[in-house]
Amino acid sequence: MATPLAERHCVACEPGTPTLSREDIDRHLQELPGWSVVQAEGHLQLARTYKFKGFVPGVELVDRIAPIAEAEGHHPDLLLTYGALRVNLWTHAAGGLTDNDFILAAKIDQLLTTDG
Amino acid sequence: MATPLAERHCVACEPGTPTLSREDIDRHLQELPGWSVVQAEGHLQLARTYKFKGFVPGVELVDRIAPIAEAEGHHPDLLLTYGALRVNLWTHAAGGLTDNDFILAAKIDQLLTTDG
Repeated sequence: MATPLAERHCVACEPGTPTLSREDIDRHLQELPGWSVVQAEGHLQLARTYKFKGFVPGVELVDRIAPIAEAEGHHPDLLLTYGALRVNLWTHAAGGLTDNDFILAAKIDQLLTTDG
Repeated sequence: MATPLAERHCVACEPGTPTLSREDIDRHLQELPGWSVVQAEGHLQLARTYKFKGFVPGVELVDRIAPIAEAEGHHPDLLLTYGALRVNLWTHAAGGLTDNDFILAAKIDQLLTTDG
């Protein structure tokens, strides 16, 4: 059985790393309810918007995402607004989506279901 | 002499609060080098992008902006990416730019010129 995305780790990408097939993307998305694949800035991105009351809960989520992004060497785009945090993930070296994006997405989701 | 923007405080806006004239906007912008007025989402916004090395300095700036936004009751849109934090300000109740946006911009700038 495949290792759950949240338990995997991002691997360093070289320029030219291939992007995932639509089949792989769809398979990963089944593990990530709440996330969707969007076309933005000329390539596919993995996106989710978390909703909150007020501003501070979004700031706190940014603070919890940051050490994971640093540890994985993979960084999301985070749009923090009053009441929401939009997370966009894509792999610059590949010019699209790789396993790394889905792994980080799963780790971010995990922040909201654990106290850790 | 007018009070510097950074020393003023945001005032609560009612729906229908008038937006600033172009003349007022241009006058305020003179106090805020680095900021520009952009058209986005159907109205004017006050925007600045701060550049950093890496991801964490942007997170730290988000953390320093948050208590000011809370104290002023006025919240920016913050787009945090690797190497940059883009700040967008506008006043929802007015549907455009008010003094509050320029006051908050000045206070955010001040974070980068002081240790406080």
